[in-house]
Amino acid sequence: MGIGRRRILFVISAPSGTGKTTICERILQKIPDLKMSVSHTTRKQRPGERHGIDYYFVDKETFQEMIKNEDFVEWAEVYGNFYGTSKKVINELLSGGSDILLDIDTQGAKNIKKLYPASVLIFILPPSIKELERRLKKRNEEEETIRKRIEKASEEISQYIFYDYVIINDDLERAVSEVFCVICAERLKKDRINGKLMDKFKNGR
Amino acid sequence: MGIGRRRILFVISAPSGTGKTTICERILQKIPDLKMSVSHTTRKQRPGERHGIDYYFVDKETFQEMIKNEDFVEWAEVYGNFYGTSKKVINELLSGGSDILLDIDTQGAKNIKKLYPASVLIFILPPSIKELERRLKKRNEEEETIRKRIEKASEEISQYIFYDYVIINDDLERAVSEVFCVICAERLKKDRINGKLMDKFKNGR
Repeated sequence: MGIGRRRILFVISAPSGTGKTTICERILQKIPDLKMSVSHTTRKQRPGERHGIDYYFVDKETFQEMIKNEDFVEWAEVYGNFYGTSKKVINELLSGGSDILLDIDTQGAKNIKKLYPASVLIFILPPSIKELERRLKKRNEEEETIRKRIEKASEEISQYIFYDYVIINDDLERAVSEVFCVICAERLKKDRINGKLMDKFKNGR
Repeated sequence: MGIGRRRILFVISAPSGTGKTTICERILQKIPDLKMSVSHTTRKQRPGERHGIDYYFVDKETFQEMIKNEDFVEWAEVYGNFYGTSKKVINELLSGGSDILLDIDTQGAKNIKKLYPASVLIFILPPSIKELERRLKKRNEEEETIRKRIEKASEEISQYIFYDYVIINDDLERAVSEVFCVICAERLKKDRINGKLMDKFKNGR
């Protein structure tokens, strides 16, 4: 039904190992008019990854230049690699009429909220730290990597307070449908209606 | 998953003929732990209606007495009959741990929001006034009744501005799933988490 409404920026954050990537993939399948923003990164391109689809792969010099030019709405260094969300990418998607899904960390999410106060921040939690540890071990990650990630996860979980929604991924199907409901509900908010709803009912008579 | 959270009062309003009753019935089937609050009314009991389930049927004297005693969170006179939502009924449901669904008019909804600022107000719209008129005619209502209802509907629609969510019922299935999503999403709001989420993650280790 065509009530005009403002476009929405959805942000999903979750500690590594929480299932965020799978959830995002499933959500994009379920909501085809939701677009994932593609990040810039200095991390090495892995086999199968496509430039401009999975990431924009750039070298450190280019990334530093972009930081200087304030081209990013948010950027972060994670395990020695840089990741950033370009203003240009976001603005092109918004002006193209899309709602946007961003997959970024808690620090980036806070920056987004400052720049776009109407954005919607969703935090995905593992059922427990113990379960997160079990999942990371199953991935055959190194002891040291697991330790670092658990430490980072605990730190990140304490940031849930800055988010609008908190979803626990103890069942993937449920977590996916909960994220789906959040996106659906946010699109129905009265505050997002753009223009004069009443006109529709005056003209409709 | 057991994060403790505060109970929620959901209010649904819609002009007569918008399909609100059907939507509420379907939502209660889909969400068994959501309880409909039973209203008091002075309107005559219709065949098949059950006291204490469809309404609490009371006489005008009892109703007036309850108004005097401030027993209602909201009450209204509609076409010569009185309808009211009793504080006692609401409080018993809330202390029983239920989320509540209230089916009340725009004036009542505004009172609820004043008394319970964390309540969630959902407004259901017909696709257009013309379609509403067609639906009312199909019910074989009298000319005069239809005229009155259309007038009231136009007045009510202008009140959408006080609501949190606006849903258009041009397709029943979609409208039901949109109300479902609103209820699901509201239950996931960080602000509704009761107590210390972090404790769970400290203990869980």
